[in-house]
Amino acid sequence: MMTVKRVAVLGGGLVGGFIARELAKYDDIELTLYDRDEAVLAHCAKTAKLATQQADLSDVSVIAAIAGAADLVMGAVPGRLGLAMLRTVIKAGTDCIDISFFPEDAAQLDNLAREKGARVVVDCGVMPGLGGMLAARFSRQFDKPQSMRILVGGLPLERSWPFEYKAPFSPADVIEEYIRPARYIVDGKLITMPALSEIELLDFPGIGTLEAFNTDGLRSIMATLPYPSMVEKTLRYPGHAEKMRMLRELGFFDEEPLAVSGGSIVPLELTSRLLFDNWKLTTGMRELTVMRVEASGIRDGQLLSLRCDVLDHTDPDSGDFSMARTTGLPAILCARMLLAGKLGIEPGVTAPETLGFDETRLNYIIRGMQHFGVQFDFTEVRL
Amino acid sequence: MMTVKRVAVLGGGLVGGFIARELAKYDDIELTLYDRDEAVLAHCAKTAKLATQQADLSDVSVIAAIAGAADLVMGAVPGRLGLAMLRTVIKAGTDCIDISFFPEDAAQLDNLAREKGARVVVDCGVMPGLGGMLAARFSRQFDKPQSMRILVGGLPLERSWPFEYKAPFSPADVIEEYIRPARYIVDGKLITMPALSEIELLDFPGIGTLEAFNTDGLRSIMATLPYPSMVEKTLRYPGHAEKMRMLRELGFFDEEPLAVSGGSIVPLELTSRLLFDNWKLTTGMRELTVMRVEASGIRDGQLLSLRCDVLDHTDPDSGDFSMARTTGLPAILCARMLLAGKLGIEPGVTAPETLGFDETRLNYIIRGMQHFGVQFDFTEVRL
Repeated sequence: MMTVKRVAVLGGGLVGGFIARELAKYDDIELTLYDRDEAVLAHCAKTAKLATQQADLSDVSVIAAIAGAADLVMGAVPGRLGLAMLRTVIKAGTDCIDISFFPEDAAQLDNLAREKGARVVVDCGVMPGLGGMLAARFSRQFDKPQSMRILVGGLPLERSWPFEYKAPFSPADVIEEYIRPARYIVDGKLITMPALSEIELLDFPGIGTLEAFNTDGLRSIMATLPYPSMVEKTLRYPGHAEKMRMLRELGFFDEEPLAVSGGSIVPLELTSRLLFDNWKLTTGMRELTVMRVEASGIRDGQLLSLRCDVLDHTDPDSGDFSMARTTGLPAILCARMLLAGKLGIEPGVTAPETLGFDETRLNYIIRGMQHFGVQFDFTEVRL
Repeated sequence: MMTVKRVAVLGGGLVGGFIARELAKYDDIELTLYDRDEAVLAHCAKTAKLATQQADLSDVSVIAAIAGAADLVMGAVPGRLGLAMLRTVIKAGTDCIDISFFPEDAAQLDNLAREKGARVVVDCGVMPGLGGMLAARFSRQFDKPQSMRILVGGLPLERSWPFEYKAPFSPADVIEEYIRPARYIVDGKLITMPALSEIELLDFPGIGTLEAFNTDGLRSIMATLPYPSMVEKTLRYPGHAEKMRMLRELGFFDEEPLAVSGGSIVPLELTSRLLFDNWKLTTGMRELTVMRVEASGIRDGQLLSLRCDVLDHTDPDSGDFSMARTTGLPAILCARMLLAGKLGIEPGVTAPETLGFDETRLNYIIRGMQHFGVQFDFTEVRL
């Protein structure tokens, strides 16, 4: 007999909506999508068989009630609501797969989750998420892992001057990645560099030349993976970083109010406002997600390089953006394993990359994504 | 016996101050410098033997009193005060050499000047000014003038990312040149293009590669010179125009208020504010002024190209900027000719380029500038 599980998806945005619509297709899941916005709920209900309920997800008592009635919570709320949401779900003792990407360190909830018996995977998207899992797998293929880097970016297919970029979320959230100093590790030492620094040009077959620059994307990987050198970089079409750096260095990203026009203005607010239309990713546009994970190390006395190139495009049939697909699918596939008792994690907060230490779990995720059309290209080179 | 002439210099800024200090060196001139700012006057009085007087040059009754007591007025007020100042000087029947570069058409004062017997030369700087004079001279060297272009720019010697530019005046005044559509003439037809358009790269010996782009700089030349094709372009270090165009196209130069931060902000005001420090040309910096005037036409049945390259650097001894020198010297030298009865102009408003139709006058100006170290390099090529 099939046991039906109650899954609550919190947030019906691009990624949350995709997760809800896909998970709702399984007969053994009774899915409810929660969002503050009725129009968002109506849109998802039109394209999938799922229950919807209007809910204020910034209200922890609302979260507590939802979590109390669910077997699994999929967290897809705005980042600023993420930590409070997850704490409340954990307090209810409910399992959670989260892609809210909140800025705070999720490890602070580990003890609470163990105590409450809640199994939690945070940052379960493409990167953080899948990229770290691939790097984890590679680390097990070396006798002595040496270095690892992850390059990742979401890009529009049509390149428009000056930024050749479209964002599925607010410009302020992208700009935040261009402000926050980037941390990476070289020979075990923590290095801090400005975001947008160390720009290099790299060729990606089928896409062309892209630039890679420092952003602060390693997160928990700095503590969980065994490479003495690790770096994460963001990919954009060439020229993007210099333009953004120019705006940053001139003060257009400043968050301190400035006296101008006889009033007070936060430069970042004007900049976000002016970039909003330029960067807007709207229905019908085509974009792609590209990620390269490469690692080197010693195996059988040989220096070896392992690489995985991941590539995905907007689904031409459904219109789902690659960004929603590649972020949502790792979360969906982890949810499937968790519900089937096959994720193999204990109560507590699990960093997503550690799932990659297990071949079976990672293969399930890769095959599941391939089934959706996401391309994986593995190469191994003796150096 | 020497007749002493009373010369009033209105405005003690970079150019006005230079004009005052240089004209004050002549024994036959009794010079008074007027400015609102006591510190500006004190600075000029320290380095030259001249009288100074604090005066509100936005007050036309003040201008009328000054003009009434002078034989010649040198106008060097901010552009927005220029037209009213000049009208008042003309009403007093006083001659005037002006480098205030006001945006309005000075021809509107021509009838008044004729009536009052005032001889006026407007825009008597490097460009407008000297550039047009050189183009006028070239036009007389052809049986059939065909085309002419003037490339001009002021640049810092030290190139600093991102703009590699320093402005001796407010960023808003420079940005104004990047906003106003550029007009030029091709085969007798008026063409209007966006400012910052048609960027081309050109080599300038001793400087390197510069970019030239459209700005609206021909002014009266469109009516006074006999070339069927004429264009003026601004010179900057390569990359400047694209960055400025980016800011313009994104809306950072907009002059309409925008609702942001719970208030209202004029984007241009924030941008001017943020660029102010970046663009500031301060004492001790070294800069250069470069201008290329080139013309082609038929002479004796042959297609001929005539060119003059003008180059000047900050004076290492006095610290006078090349911008002040190359703008101030044409005005100074015209003033000398006017006072000596050798400028040969009638009462009315004279466009500066028309002075170049006369070899003697232009040679006086060129030799006078060469005496100050400004470099002129003439070339003639049969095409």
